Amino acid sequence: MANCLVAQSGGPTTVINASLAGVVKANQLNPVYDTVYGGLNGIEGILQERLVDLTHMPDMENRILRQTPSSALGSCRYKLKRDDETDYRKLVAVMDKFNIEIMFYIGGNDSMDTVDALSQWAKKNNIAKRFVGIPKTVDNDLMVTDHCPGFASAAKFVNDVVTSTWLDYNVYTRAEVFILETMGRDAGWLAGSSVISGKVDLLVLPEEDFDQEVFLAEVKKCMDTKGKCYIVVSEGAHFADGSYLAAGKAVNDGFGHAVLGGAGNAVKNMILEAGIAPRAKVQDLSTAQRCANYAQSLVDVTEAFELGMSAHMRSADGKFTGHVVGVQRKPGAEYDVDFIEGPADQFANHVKHIPAGWILPNYAGLTQEAYDYFKPLIVGEPALIMKDGVPAYVKPYHMK
Amino acid sequence: MANCLVAQSGGPTTVINASLAGVVKANQLNPVYDTVYGGLNGIEGILQERLVDLTHMPDMENRILRQTPSSALGSCRYKLKRDDETDYRKLVAVMDKFNIEIMFYIGGNDSMDTVDALSQWAKKNNIAKRFVGIPKTVDNDLMVTDHCPGFASAAKFVNDVVTSTWLDYNVYTRAEVFILETMGRDAGWLAGSSVISGKVDLLVLPEEDFDQEVFLAEVKKCMDTKGKCYIVVSEGAHFADGSYLAAGKAVNDGFGHAVLGGAGNAVKNMILEAGIAPRAKVQDLSTAQRCANYAQSLVDVTEAFELGMSAHMRSADGKFTGHVVGVQRKPGAEYDVDFIEGPADQFANHVKHIPAGWILPNYAGLTQEAYDYFKPLIVGEPALIMKDGVPAYVKPYHMK
Repeated sequence: MANCLVAQSGGPTTVINASLAGVVKANQLNPVYDTVYGGLNGIEGILQERLVDLTHMPDMENRILRQTPSSALGSCRYKLKRDDETDYRKLVAVMDKFNIEIMFYIGGNDSMDTVDALSQWAKKNNIAKRFVGIPKTVDNDLMVTDHCPGFASAAKFVNDVVTSTWLDYNVYTRAEVFILETMGRDAGWLAGSSVISGKVDLLVLPEEDFDQEVFLAEVKKCMDTKGKCYIVVSEGAHFADGSYLAAGKAVNDGFGHAVLGGAGNAVKNMILEAGIAPRAKVQDLSTAQRCANYAQSLVDVTEAFELGMSAHMRSADGKFTGHVVGVQRKPGAEYDVDFIEGPADQFANHVKHIPAGWILPNYAGLTQEAYDYFKPLIVGEPALIMKDGVPAYVKPYHMK
Repeated sequence: MANCLVAQSGGPTTVINASLAGVVKANQLNPVYDTVYGGLNGIEGILQERLVDLTHMPDMENRILRQTPSSALGSCRYKLKRDDETDYRKLVAVMDKFNIEIMFYIGGNDSMDTVDALSQWAKKNNIAKRFVGIPKTVDNDLMVTDHCPGFASAAKFVNDVVTSTWLDYNVYTRAEVFILETMGRDAGWLAGSSVISGKVDLLVLPEEDFDQEVFLAEVKKCMDTKGKCYIVVSEGAHFADGSYLAAGKAVNDGFGHAVLGGAGNAVKNMILEAGIAPRAKVQDLSTAQRCANYAQSLVDVTEAFELGMSAHMRSADGKFTGHVVGVQRKPGAEYDVDFIEGPADQFANHVKHIPAGWILPNYAGLTQEAYDYFKPLIVGEPALIMKDGVPAYVKPYHMK
């Protein structure tokens, strides 16, 4: 028999390790592969033969791994070049050396593209290596799959913070604007998910060109009506010329560094400049939104684990390659999914945006369809195993 | 019989409503007062006779109130003047009108000072009104009490975020600095609490004058050793001349607004300018740290509730006034507290700092004594009642 390899790439999420745990657990339930190798720091570490044996992971470690945020195998931003075979051949040499016949790659858009490129190249060159993708991204912008593992937990965190900061900024009677900035450079899914909190007055998405005049008029209308305005803005919000709000107000701090205030601070500045509100506060969720495991969504962590299982199980036929696993929502009122697969090139290299038809005019939020899409994803919490007051975690394998 | 009044003031916390719930529940267990009035928006609203009847709060509402972050009665920044009796007399007139003989004030330093001033003045003028303080503050800077309700949950949130962002920033092999900024203008308790995560390389507190040269040398040492450096900085960090790090790098954005980057960004800028690290990321916890109820500490929410109960129960003697309730840690390995009381002027008007003996030189963190102090406070989680994926909350009374 041969061995398999699993690795992670791109920005981490709260549940990317649950997919890793799923692959490992599946091979314990049905030992299709002799050894399950973990590749450290993605392709970058694999090319350096930095592998770790995960085959006999104890069940308790597997359970804690599912609730460990960030990439336990480490990650990389290294992208294989499609027009240069050097890395491809080197990767196959490493796989040969460790008798690895298949690689499971957990990642976002770039990683799914890598899965496509490697499997195409292997087929063309009659190389008996297989490459399978398991999706993850808090940005939720992969095609084919209904949503991406990692997104729902980040959306749950966003909604937690929106609800609690909304309660907080309302305690004083003073006129005030609160601005929450979320991740999402190209697609506004995370910002958009905040609407289900029912607290958001204005929503600024990267799906639309930002019209400062219209926006400020809406802020003014909101302030005139209730003296408060809660705004959620995606980091990727941009003007019609493509320039980001975050970059628009760049100033020099006197030391040659551009002070990038972020989209939230840009919105704050324009509101204060226009004299629409005397006070505005910004909360930039920053890194915490993609790794806050105490806000894990039960749907998310379960599906991430099951997708890891699914990828392994489909591969048991000895042929499965160049494909990515995903979920498709079943019709009906009760949330449920079918587990699906599809060619990697259909998942990757396109950005799935919030449908234009879901976006209400004048920054007023999203339609009921969007609520129905987001709502079931963030419901339910796993029973976390705690240690010293914080969720227990597995020490990252790449740091051992 | 007469009535009682309870109100909240100052910046909200995650458990300030648990103290309110405690007062209400205590009066249901022993109806010392006919009516429990809630004063909306602190002294400010009470002077406008904005009261709400909380006497018969259903138990489920009481339970959800305990997990509702922020001040459910609203808050104010209004400070009664000690040398002007106008507001005092107006307050007493409102209390007379509603047959209120005692007021419970849940708040921080200023509110405990108000309790002291009002009770002293009432005694001096033979006015049969009583004033009792229930402490709260995420800053943990009140005297007498071992710690302040609200602090432990904020500290738990800080430790959650430190642990998860530390896991996140470690996924890449690249050299990188991560800077987490916490609240704490005068005292560094929240920043200091982060040491129990075991992840913090350098800690910058307001208890010490900031020495840029020494600090940067330590950052460099850390980067040279492991290529990474995790820094926690309190918003109140300041130079020897008293100026805040946050203000030191103020620049003008061209529209007359000073761009205050915060202490975290100031630290980031000085590290990049010195060329010590090629990359530095800042996470400013901002408002979320004081209102994140999904990170409530069980010790914190329980004690906050019990302190509300305790204040009410002590007042049943008809004499209790001018005092504040608090907790005193019992000796022994197992964490436990005695519930205590003391004159309001002993709690207020001083800032309790982290003891100098707990602070290690060269930003290296805190001693074992600090670990022993912080650790039991953040352990344990209440079973939250969830709704639509986020913790259920009571709609603020001041917004109804």
